[in-house]
Amino acid sequence: MAASCRLKPLSRVAVSGGTHGNEMSGVYLAKHWLRDPMELRRDSFAVTPFLGNPCAIEKCVRYVGRDLNRTFTTEFLSSAEAEDEPYEVVRARKINQTYGPKGSAQAFDFMFDLHNTTANMGACLIVDSEESLLPMHMCHYIQTHYTRSPCPIYLYKLPGEETYSINSVAKAGLVLELGPQPQRVVRADLFAQMRGLMACALDFIELFNKGTVFPAFEIEAYKITGLMDYPRYPDGEISAMVHPKLQDKDFLPLNPGDPIFQTFSGEEILYKDDTTIYPAFINEAAYYEKKVAFAKMEKHTFSMPGLQRE
Amino acid sequence: MAASCRLKPLSRVAVSGGTHGNEMSGVYLAKHWLRDPMELRRDSFAVTPFLGNPCAIEKCVRYVGRDLNRTFTTEFLSSAEAEDEPYEVVRARKINQTYGPKGSAQAFDFMFDLHNTTANMGACLIVDSEESLLPMHMCHYIQTHYTRSPCPIYLYKLPGEETYSINSVAKAGLVLELGPQPQRVVRADLFAQMRGLMACALDFIELFNKGTVFPAFEIEAYKITGLMDYPRYPDGEISAMVHPKLQDKDFLPLNPGDPIFQTFSGEEILYKDDTTIYPAFINEAAYYEKKVAFAKMEKHTFSMPGLQRE
Repeated sequence: MAASCRLKPLSRVAVSGGTHGNEMSGVYLAKHWLRDPMELRRDSFAVTPFLGNPCAIEKCVRYVGRDLNRTFTTEFLSSAEAEDEPYEVVRARKINQTYGPKGSAQAFDFMFDLHNTTANMGACLIVDSEESLLPMHMCHYIQTHYTRSPCPIYLYKLPGEETYSINSVAKAGLVLELGPQPQRVVRADLFAQMRGLMACALDFIELFNKGTVFPAFEIEAYKITGLMDYPRYPDGEISAMVHPKLQDKDFLPLNPGDPIFQTFSGEEILYKDDTTIYPAFINEAAYYEKKVAFAKMEKHTFSMPGLQRE
Repeated sequence: MAASCRLKPLSRVAVSGGTHGNEMSGVYLAKHWLRDPMELRRDSFAVTPFLGNPCAIEKCVRYVGRDLNRTFTTEFLSSAEAEDEPYEVVRARKINQTYGPKGSAQAFDFMFDLHNTTANMGACLIVDSEESLLPMHMCHYIQTHYTRSPCPIYLYKLPGEETYSINSVAKAGLVLELGPQPQRVVRADLFAQMRGLMACALDFIELFNKGTVFPAFEIEAYKITGLMDYPRYPDGEISAMVHPKLQDKDFLPLNPGDPIFQTFSGEEILYKDDTTIYPAFINEAAYYEKKVAFAKMEKHTFSMPGLQRE
């Protein structure tokens, strides 16, 4: 990478709350901003809050037909309208029209997406990969200026995988993934955190737009390498739970031989791979159906070049 | 009350897991016992585990048509079958046939019902009222012998109210309400707690059946006096969250003037009644739709007479 990069200033920024309709920090923040957008205002750019999945929010469920946040691929965005297609496919096309189209010059400059997890992930910042320079600078700014909680960085894109999430319709994006919070519950502490993180991120964009020079830095981030399913009976039902020694230990090292599951009969199951990993999304409610007990992460340190506006 | 009471020994005991299909400690415990009932076996009585709401368990939701655990009233149990009635009305009649009929001599002697809450209620023991002598002795035995967690007693029946819950079809019952645990998540620590509490309760029945004399005692319990809704906008949407100072403070004293809510704009709302209460079910996920931010409880001390079998 170059020692310093210049990027265009951002003019149009969107924020989605309720991409998953039962993750309540973002649902209630977006609803609040739609009533009173004052705190989103900055001099140099416009911020548009919106409800990602209004139908799922109304029913207080993750999704109605299929997971909206896995629906922003070419397959779905370019498919012909059909009568029996899931609500979320229609909704994804509409969001792509409004804030994209994905990959085009007309797309919004940036999209925030607000999520909660039942896992103990703190104020996690999710970026597609370390190659996304502006979001990585934003993460670094947040880690430096938002001090009420650790903000681990989660890089979600597997090599060669197409982006599929709602913020991939904009030119760049960041996901705030705050936990632990049960589905369908809004906790005042996490609500305040999400609000504070958003204010900090908007301040970063304002500084960038106004010409602040952000120097090069080194930064630690967790990069996904794979997923771990629950042990199962032959009929497909899970036969074990996350081990009490792993529960709530997101982003802490898991070494070969450490316990990862406990069967309902009481036996321990140990981690058998030969390298240390840093699990995340441990015991996330929505991932049982995705056959994911936790995501396997590697810890990396990346050298990022400096950044300023063109 | 008499200084000591004699009751018939118990021969048939049932345990429902998944009365609410997304409260996973009971769902997975009942499923485990259906595969391997060994740990439920005692000499003097039979224990029958069952899945309360199989259709809701399959979909991992609280209920499909209406809350099963509010459906065991004369109105629903004695209603004629109808084509468009909710699944849970059909299911309640079936459970009443199998383990009741409610109020009859043929009814099961005892029913346990296994629940989780997103509230910080610990290992809460729910009984209809302090007049239920055998369940109150069971609670006292659990509090004395199960020492891994405090076990507050919650008396749920309002004066004059008809019983409506699943265990009301048996002659007596006890609800285990363990939290905090998100909906759709099974935590190994709470699973172990629920299993331990059940073992302790079954041991109590065994001792009672075999003739142990349980002396009189005094016991502290929380009795419901009413419910508190969230503040709302004119359109019905909630306008505030549980205050961070009240969150997770179940069964602790709430005094007049203490903060109870924080609006999404940031204002505090204070508790205005003129007596101290002990809130429970604070910020329970399933109670948003019931318009309940918390249950208002009074703390009482009851003198219970001794107990032995006839």
